[in-house]
Amino acid sequence: MDTIIKNGLVVTASDTFAADVGIAGGVVVQLGQSLHAEGAHVIDASGRYVLPGGVDPHTHLDSPSQQVVTADDFRSGTVAAACGGTTTIIDMCFQRHGESLAEALADWHRRAAGRAVIDYGFHIVVVDLTDQVEAELARLPGEGIPSFKLFMAYKHGPMVDDLTMLRVLEQARDHGGLVLVHAENGDAAFHAQRRLLAEGKTAPRYHAVSRPPRVEAEATARAIALAELVGAPLFVVHVSCGEALEEVLRGRARGVHVRAETCTHYLYTSEADLDRPDFAGAKYVFTPPPRQPHQQAVLWNALADGALQLVSSDHSVFNFHGQKELGRGDFSKIPNGAPGIEERLIGVYQGVQSGKITLNRFVDLVATAPAKLFGLYPRKGTIAIGGDADIVLWNPAAELTITQAALHHQVDYTLYEGLRVRGLPETVLLRGQVIVEGREFVGRAGGGQFLRRARYPK
Amino acid sequence: MDTIIKNGLVVTASDTFAADVGIAGGVVVQLGQSLHAEGAHVIDASGRYVLPGGVDPHTHLDSPSQQVVTADDFRSGTVAAACGGTTTIIDMCFQRHGESLAEALADWHRRAAGRAVIDYGFHIVVVDLTDQVEAELARLPGEGIPSFKLFMAYKHGPMVDDLTMLRVLEQARDHGGLVLVHAENGDAAFHAQRRLLAEGKTAPRYHAVSRPPRVEAEATARAIALAELVGAPLFVVHVSCGEALEEVLRGRARGVHVRAETCTHYLYTSEADLDRPDFAGAKYVFTPPPRQPHQQAVLWNALADGALQLVSSDHSVFNFHGQKELGRGDFSKIPNGAPGIEERLIGVYQGVQSGKITLNRFVDLVATAPAKLFGLYPRKGTIAIGGDADIVLWNPAAELTITQAALHHQVDYTLYEGLRVRGLPETVLLRGQVIVEGREFVGRAGGGQFLRRARYPK
Amino acid sequence: MDTIIKNGLVVTASDTFAADVGIAGGVVVQLGQSLHAEGAHVIDASGRYVLPGGVDPHTHLDSPSQQVVTADDFRSGTVAAACGGTTTIIDMCFQRHGESLAEALADWHRRAAGRAVIDYGFHIVVVDLTDQVEAELARLPGEGIPSFKLFMAYKHGPMVDDLTMLRVLEQARDHGGLVLVHAENGDAAFHAQRRLLAEGKTAPRYHAVSRPPRVEAEATARAIALAELVGAPLFVVHVSCGEALEEVLRGRARGVHVRAETCTHYLYTSEADLDRPDFAGAKYVFTPPPRQPHQQAVLWNALADGALQLVSSDHSVFNFHGQKELGRGDFSKIPNGAPGIEERLIGVYQGVQSGKITLNRFVDLVATAPAKLFGLYPRKGTIAIGGDADIVLWNPAAELTITQAALHHQVDYTLYEGLRVRGLPETVLLRGQVIVEGREFVGRAGGGQFLRRARYPK
Amino acid sequence: MDTIIKNGLVVTASDTFAADVGIAGGVVVQLGQSLHAEGAHVIDASGRYVLPGGVDPHTHLDSPSQQVVTADDFRSGTVAAACGGTTTIIDMCFQRHGESLAEALADWHRRAAGRAVIDYGFHIVVVDLTDQVEAELARLPGEGIPSFKLFMAYKHGPMVDDLTMLRVLEQARDHGGLVLVHAENGDAAFHAQRRLLAEGKTAPRYHAVSRPPRVEAEATARAIALAELVGAPLFVVHVSCGEALEEVLRGRARGVHVRAETCTHYLYTSEADLDRPDFAGAKYVFTPPPRQPHQQAVLWNALADGALQLVSSDHSVFNFHGQKELGRGDFSKIPNGAPGIEERLIGVYQGVQSGKITLNRFVDLVATAPAKLFGLYPRKGTIAIGGDADIVLWNPAAELTITQAALHHQVDYTLYEGLRVRGLPETVLLRGQVIVEGREFVGRAGGGQFLRRARYPK
Repeated sequence: MDTIIKNGLVVTASDTFAADVGIAGGVVVQLGQSLHAEGAHVIDASGRYVLPGGVDPHTHLDSPSQQVVTADDFRSGTVAAACGGTTTIIDMCFQRHGESLAEALADWHRRAAGRAVIDYGFHIVVVDLTDQVEAELARLPGEGIPSFKLFMAYKHGPMVDDLTMLRVLEQARDHGGLVLVHAENGDAAFHAQRRLLAEGKTAPRYHAVSRPPRVEAEATARAIALAELVGAPLFVVHVSCGEALEEVLRGRARGVHVRAETCTHYLYTSEADLDRPDFAGAKYVFTPPPRQPHQQAVLWNALADGALQLVSSDHSVFNFHGQKELGRGDFSKIPNGAPGIEERLIGVYQGVQSGKITLNRFVDLVATAPAKLFGLYPRKGTIAIGGDADIVLWNPAAELTITQAALHHQVDYTLYEGLRVRGLPETVLLRGQVIVEGREFVGRAGGGQFLRRARYPK
Repeated sequence: MDTIIKNGLVVTASDTFAADVGIAGGVVVQLGQSLHAEGAHVIDASGRYVLPGGVDPHTHLDSPSQQVVTADDFRSGTVAAACGGTTTIIDMCFQRHGESLAEALADWHRRAAGRAVIDYGFHIVVVDLTDQVEAELARLPGEGIPSFKLFMAYKHGPMVDDLTMLRVLEQARDHGGLVLVHAENGDAAFHAQRRLLAEGKTAPRYHAVSRPPRVEAEATARAIALAELVGAPLFVVHVSCGEALEEVLRGRARGVHVRAETCTHYLYTSEADLDRPDFAGAKYVFTPPPRQPHQQAVLWNALADGALQLVSSDHSVFNFHGQKELGRGDFSKIPNGAPGIEERLIGVYQGVQSGKITLNRFVDLVATAPAKLFGLYPRKGTIAIGGDADIVLWNPAAELTITQAALHHQVDYTLYEGLRVRGLPETVLLRGQVIVEGREFVGRAGGGQFLRRARYPK
Repeated sequence: MDTIIKNGLVVTASDTFAADVGIAGGVVVQLGQSLHAEGAHVIDASGRYVLPGGVDPHTHLDSPSQQVVTADDFRSGTVAAACGGTTTIIDMCFQRHGESLAEALADWHRRAAGRAVIDYGFHIVVVDLTDQVEAELARLPGEGIPSFKLFMAYKHGPMVDDLTMLRVLEQARDHGGLVLVHAENGDAAFHAQRRLLAEGKTAPRYHAVSRPPRVEAEATARAIALAELVGAPLFVVHVSCGEALEEVLRGRARGVHVRAETCTHYLYTSEADLDRPDFAGAKYVFTPPPRQPHQQAVLWNALADGALQLVSSDHSVFNFHGQKELGRGDFSKIPNGAPGIEERLIGVYQGVQSGKITLNRFVDLVATAPAKLFGLYPRKGTIAIGGDADIVLWNPAAELTITQAALHHQVDYTLYEGLRVRGLPETVLLRGQVIVEGREFVGRAGGGQFLRRARYPK
Repeated sequence: MDTIIKNGLVVTASDTFAADVGIAGGVVVQLGQSLHAEGAHVIDASGRYVLPGGVDPHTHLDSPSQQVVTADDFRSGTVAAACGGTTTIIDMCFQRHGESLAEALADWHRRAAGRAVIDYGFHIVVVDLTDQVEAELARLPGEGIPSFKLFMAYKHGPMVDDLTMLRVLEQARDHGGLVLVHAENGDAAFHAQRRLLAEGKTAPRYHAVSRPPRVEAEATARAIALAELVGAPLFVVHVSCGEALEEVLRGRARGVHVRAETCTHYLYTSEADLDRPDFAGAKYVFTPPPRQPHQQAVLWNALADGALQLVSSDHSVFNFHGQKELGRGDFSKIPNGAPGIEERLIGVYQGVQSGKITLNRFVDLVATAPAKLFGLYPRKGTIAIGGDADIVLWNPAAELTITQAALHHQVDYTLYEGLRVRGLPETVLLRGQVIVEGREFVGRAGGGQFLRRARYPK
């Protein structure tokens, strides 16, 4: 053992126990009382929870879309992640039209390598499904990319038709992949945008009007039906409302293998935020849009009772100044997305504070479940013998008022400005090395490794 | 009064009463006991039900599709209809790609004029929605065509995308139209066809495998969601299974104005019919396909309790010899459709015989409800003062074993061969004129009139 | 023909047509244009709707309960009914503990005879099910009493247990009866009352708190399950909320034969009314209690699309002064019930005015459906040859602000005080005799007849 | 460390990792690679899973009911449990009519003490709720009995009414208790029994006919509604069918805190078993009864996706000879119940073998979830530092054909006779002591301890 974390309370998705954690070569090798090893670096975790590092399976770093690129690159984004207690991300690698998946992945590798400060994997976003691309999909799970993302929204953008979904679902089914779906009816959203703009309804608030819960629920139901028809598993990203959740539960009751996430911001924001003055509502333009306030309780319940499997950040960030502002006078031109890579664990943990979820469930939602669903387990996502020593020392007594200044992302705002929270990550280890100390990043750019992930089990 | 029907039992969608029916100028003018008029033609209806003539709102006469044309034209088809107790049809007028709706309607008028022996209207099937066509849709309800049909199935054929549906639904909403939708996911059916054929599964039975209930239920749910989003009414044609019906009921519970029909054949056929020997299963190839037998009871219940509004024939006929046979070796090449224009009232009436529905409900399902929903009421669909004297004398005691020989359509088979039935139409009047006597047509070609229908009420 | 109603627009549950109505011997004998008969009494109905007289299948006249008796007896109650356009009621005849059903019915006959000014039948309320009573139930449908009412609420009152329900449902099933059920969980309401009163929550508003929608939905689901288990039809009285309606629809989707009503007051009142000052909230204490305002739209939708079959008054009236006041300081002591026998048709008709329901549906809801469901059709509930000439001339242009002074019941308030309405009954005929003229009763006490009703069809 | 389990694969509800397990004083103190301690007893677990001992939260040992007593007492029953890999049970302590809960618990302590070979707790079954008993319920959670069982079935037996349920739910809510409910409508089952017996339908198969899925689903829905009304958590025991499961999911979707179990036998048996010849069907008479075969897949899915929380045995055993035989000629006299305390882990594990559930989920279902839900965690239910060293060495390669001879219970049959299984418990430790070796019990009577359990968290 070269490092020992002493006196903490270890928390996994299942268990909570007082134990020291012995680490050797970046891996957890011992859990027990009163561990000791000559010369080992000792970290005192008295009064701290010892948690597995967070796994954020839904980020968009350095991601070009139309005329803009997301404001966090793999360095700034992963530094923010690390400071928030996340030690692994899975980023969305977009295929461009006409491009092979191999080219898309090579591009993404270039963006990440030498920059990422935590470990990372890629989902592949299929935009242009040729026969050649279909063949690539068959191979990708064996090459460490077992998850394929599809968009049902963004007409004239990455949106795909049902036939494409069926073909991709089949490849996933046959080769150990899992399809992730952005479930909103793109035609309906596009149509509503046109109608609203034609009526002079251009403000950010019309973003929510253009894609109400039924737009999401319809697509969710459809994606599940398609998965059912071909017998493939499905993962629904960013469920934002009870209407969509109902479809997930109906599908599951029919025996469809469907899993789903929500994102931190759906637990905290609502339509009213889009009305913030001075165009600040644009900061809250993400898809699906913020919903009515009662939906937050629906989502917390679903996180508690297992209806939803995990919480991701969907960190897809655009500066208010210069980027979000492109949509002044036309809400449909506001780049979609919001920050959350650093706020995710803190945000979800507040549900432990308020009794909505248990401490173990918190760990499951932010670390273990994403690691398991996306082929990173048992290396990532838990604290267990043989797993990577990706560890967060969490101070349940620490308090903070979230401000933009206190965060590490490179975008110019946070959704949670002024939110008083209790419970914070303090020290973060990546494979046994301390990379965050006292909420400041002390690691190095490029310290992150690419992770080849395992196939999705049949 | 020029004609009096005496001694019958008049049945409407609501009422059943013994009364004579006095007719003048083709219109019902008197209902009462012991009617008398000098010189009037008297028809004795002792022991007969006096019913309004059937209204069949879903037929495909003389309809070209790909390489074949439906085997009944407006003469043979309407003769068969008349002999089955139907005095009004609404036929599906197909727009061709590149064609204006006016051109399509002109074509259909040419097909019908001088041939139809009963009255008729047209739905317009929108296949190619240009801005010009959108403008035509705005005008059509005012010109007597208040119903627009859309196909969600038949990829590379009449299938439209969701954006088209939304735009057409809006025109309907704004101008007093009603959208009829063929709800099957065309991508899913197309994909399944390809997969099945690739696996050598070419027999008629795979027609059903390629479009299971979920294919229908998904599209039904989607159409309802789109109607909900734009606030338009919707009519779902040929509901064939409980899964689709559940979506109709869910939509209605959310306050969506959705109405729906089933067709006679779904009450009588099942998947097993597709396995009939010597390729005879091809006779049962229609869409949605025949379902498992338990669905028949589901549909009868839905007809009884008001979940479904009416029964149409979807008479779309292809000869077994020469047409259906095109699909030997490839079920996807079997022309889709089956006869029923003559068997419809008889088929539905058997539900009265067996206690599944009331006599009034029978009248509603085959005459009144279609007349009301599609803008023909009060001229058509009932027996009431001032309405057209389209009247069927129905003999509840007459029995028949259905055979191809006993029917009047021009196609070479019936789905109901050998079915023993009780209760038959005997005499049929169109606007006061006897056109069927003793189950034989005695009217004249061209005796039918085109009906300008009223707008769908908001 | 001794009487002819000329120039009106006849409306039935299905049809609307301009026709004169010829009456002979209290029965409709002719419908037609320009009717004429020597010496016949002619009533001009120009500009009027000619409707079947209303059938109110749920009243409580002269009904003793604990320490109070309802304030309307069979004379005053039926005068009010007549003035509101109702020509038939079915009153709830309560069995007392230890009493035979024959004794209960004899008692009710005594209360009605010589007083009722319109025709009437009785439901029998089974409170104490002995083997002898079970035997009586088997006979009652043959004696003109084919409907049995059960209470799942009112613990220590008429509430029965599930075993009783099962036994009564079986008698109904076997002998052509229909069970009506008051579906609220009596234990839950009783328990909540005790808890609320113990907490000092004694005001009328706690009446609603003590029996929220779940109390009704639970019992509705249970009653339907019990009917399903024995294979009997069921009628749910006074459905007040979407939660209960959902259970009705779920049952129907499983194939259970379940029908249901709502009452006028659920379309107009809400929980807020219980907060009216000076204890006036007590006027709105009925069961189920008034609900949240959004439930009104749910119920109107259900009336429009056929989910609910009819609207009754549940006229069960207690004077505010001297009766409702018994519950000052203890909401559970407020006698439950409210007036509506006169306001029913007017209240439901406003839905025609505002486009929520059609004119035909209005007739069905207040006259035809109740007549059919409860064995009075074809004698009552429609305008058709051979039926009783119970007819209302309805002035769609007449307007009124409802006030207590304008009504004819004997209770000291109306729920609708100040409501501006359009569309009123003006002239009412009972079996061909005018009993209301210009909204004033001109008939005679005892002019009503007891109606032996037919069995419920299997 | 006095004992070390070496070379095994440790499995928890969340994690799977190769590690040695160090034990001191009956407690796990170390997890790690290559553990060593002077003089420690070393158990080799090569090729074995190292699992937490099973927790069976639903047993009926030495339990008198009417004229019979269950055939396993606390010695024989817990020996069987231990041999099946279970180290903790929670037995149902029945109150008798007129008895205080303290008396009932004292009785049960007498039955268990000196006999139980594994640790045990008690649920209290409330049969007769007086004010005094209500006061006892308030105290019991603080005394280690935080779970109250209620029966909605068994009319004239332990069945309680809804008012009792509401009162008990309130005590649970206020004092950290959890109500367990046997959800079947007792009136409906009783009524059906009478009807069936009157018709001469006396064979075991009518047991299932008398309590179809709707009987269970109705009571499940009702129990959930009552829990919702008072705001209490609820646990539904022995869910046997999709109909009841649907009610659980509907309740959860409304935000009701409802958790549920199924039992091993519902995963393996079906109605057809009741038809076994020579009255052997009586062996399969338990409540709810065995269901149609498709329900097994529904339950496995629900176990996999989290809809159901755990699997218990509901071990309630009666000898075929002398006990089950009491019901010859009257199925309602067959004592209800079946063995499973030893077969439970083996039975559920087969789902891991066949890919229905994961290994971690298996551990959760049979050990961790019951320990957490019933206040035994973290002492029981997992393998973690500081927890009791209740450990099972499981041989995934071992195979067995289950026979009565191979089992250790005292009842004269097994439901699984002839079932070929793979994966067996071999060695079992209770608090660090080996009590089963090679599937034979080597511990001592009375080695089990009574467990005071913690309150259910709010």
